[in-house]
Amino acid sequence: MSVIMEFSIFPIDKGEHVSQYVKKVIEMIDALPCESQLTSMGTIVECETMEECLAVISKANALLEQCSERIYCTATFDNKPGKKDQMEHKIKAVRGE
Amino acid sequence: MSVIMEFSIFPIDKGEHVSQYVKKVIEMIDALPCESQLTSMGTIVECETMEECLAVISKANALLEQCSERIYCTATFDNKPGKKDQMEHKIKAVRGE
Amino acid sequence: MSVIMEFSIFPIDKGEHVSQYVKKVIEMIDALPCESQLTSMGTIVECETMEECLAVISKANALLEQCSERIYCTATFDNKPGKKDQMEHKIKAVRGE
Amino acid sequence: MSVIMEFSIFPIDKGEHVSQYVKKVIEMIDALPCESQLTSMGTIVECETMEECLAVISKANALLEQCSERIYCTATFDNKPGKKDQMEHKIKAVRGE
Repeated sequence: MSVIMEFSIFPIDKGEHVSQYVKKVIEMIDALPCESQLTSMGTIVECETMEECLAVISKANALLEQCSERIYCTATFDNKPGKKDQMEHKIKAVRGE
Repeated sequence: MSVIMEFSIFPIDKGEHVSQYVKKVIEMIDALPCESQLTSMGTIVECETMEECLAVISKANALLEQCSERIYCTATFDNKPGKKDQMEHKIKAVRGE
Repeated sequence: MSVIMEFSIFPIDKGEHVSQYVKKVIEMIDALPCESQLTSMGTIVECETMEECLAVISKANALLEQCSERIYCTATFDNKPGKKDQMEHKIKAVRGE
Repeated sequence: MSVIMEFSIFPIDKGEHVSQYVKKVIEMIDALPCESQLTSMGTIVECETMEECLAVISKANALLEQCSERIYCTATFDNKPGKKDQMEHKIKAVRGE
C-alpha cells in the first residue's frame, strides 16, 4: 500500500513571515521513518496507509496549536493500495524513463 | 475549538462518472454527529478538533479502498482553536451581517 | 462547456481577521454574470471555459495586491467540456435525485 | 514580483494510468522560460505575475481538452509582490540556512 501526501500547514495570525513556525513542522517530519521531500510549497510524504499520512497532519497541527490562534492547512493525497515507492515511480513515469 | 474542513475524495480508476462511489462517502458523512454541507466541489465539515476532521477522511478513504485501486483526495482546513460555529460565522463576516 | 472552480484567496500578512479583505473579493464575484456560491471555505464559480475561471482568480488577486504583501490562494477545477449547469447536476447525482 | 504556484492537472475519464497525458503537460512546462520543478504530486512553477502562472494552467488544460471529457486540476499560489527567487529562498528559510 502506498499513499503520497502533499501538504502545507502554517499559522495565519503571525503575519507575513512564518518560517520559524513551519521549521518546527519540518523538524518533526524529518524525524519520521517515512520518505519525505521539502518543496517551496509544502512537504511531500509517502506512507504505507492513509492513516499514517493523516497522523502526520495531526502532529503538525498539534505543534502549531501551541503557538497560534488560527492555522490553515491544505493537503492532497494520491492513494494506490497495493503499490509502493510511488514518489520515485510517478516522476519516472511522466519523464518516460 | 473549531476546525472547518473542505474535502473531496474520489476514485480515479473508474472513468468519468464517479457519483455512485461519492454517494457512499456522502451517506457516511450525513450520519456523522457534526455539521456538514455538500457542495458541487466537495463536502464541508465542522468538527471540534483536527483529529475528528482527519477521522472523516480516514472513513471516507476506507469506503473507497473497498472498490478502487487509486483514490485521489484534496482537503483544506481552517483551524481556530477556542472558537465554535465557524461555518455560519465566517459567511456572515464577509457578508457584513 | 462547463468548468466548476472552488477557490479561496486571502492575505497572510494581515493577521487572523481577514474578512474585510475577502469581502472585496466576494463583491467582485457577486457582480459577475456567472453562477457562484459563497461557502465557509471559499467560493464556487461555474463558468463556460477554464479561461473565464482563471480570470476570476486574476481579478481577485489584483484586488488583494492593492493592500497586501503576501497573498495565498487555493483552487480546484472540475472541467467537463461539452456539459453545462454542473453545479446543480453534480449534487443531484450524488443525492440520487 | 514573485508568484510560486504548485499545481496538478489530469484527466479523470482515462482510468488509473494517466502518465501519458501528464507527460504532455510536463513537456509544455519544460519549454517555458520560468523556473519549474516536477514533483511526485504535481509541478511547482515560479513566475513574475499571477497572470503568468494562470496562463500555465490555461495551456495545460488546453492540451488535455484535446483528449479528455473530464479534467481535474488543483492549484495553490503563494504570491509575494515585490519579491523574487522565492522557490529557493523559502526552502532556505525553513532549513535555517
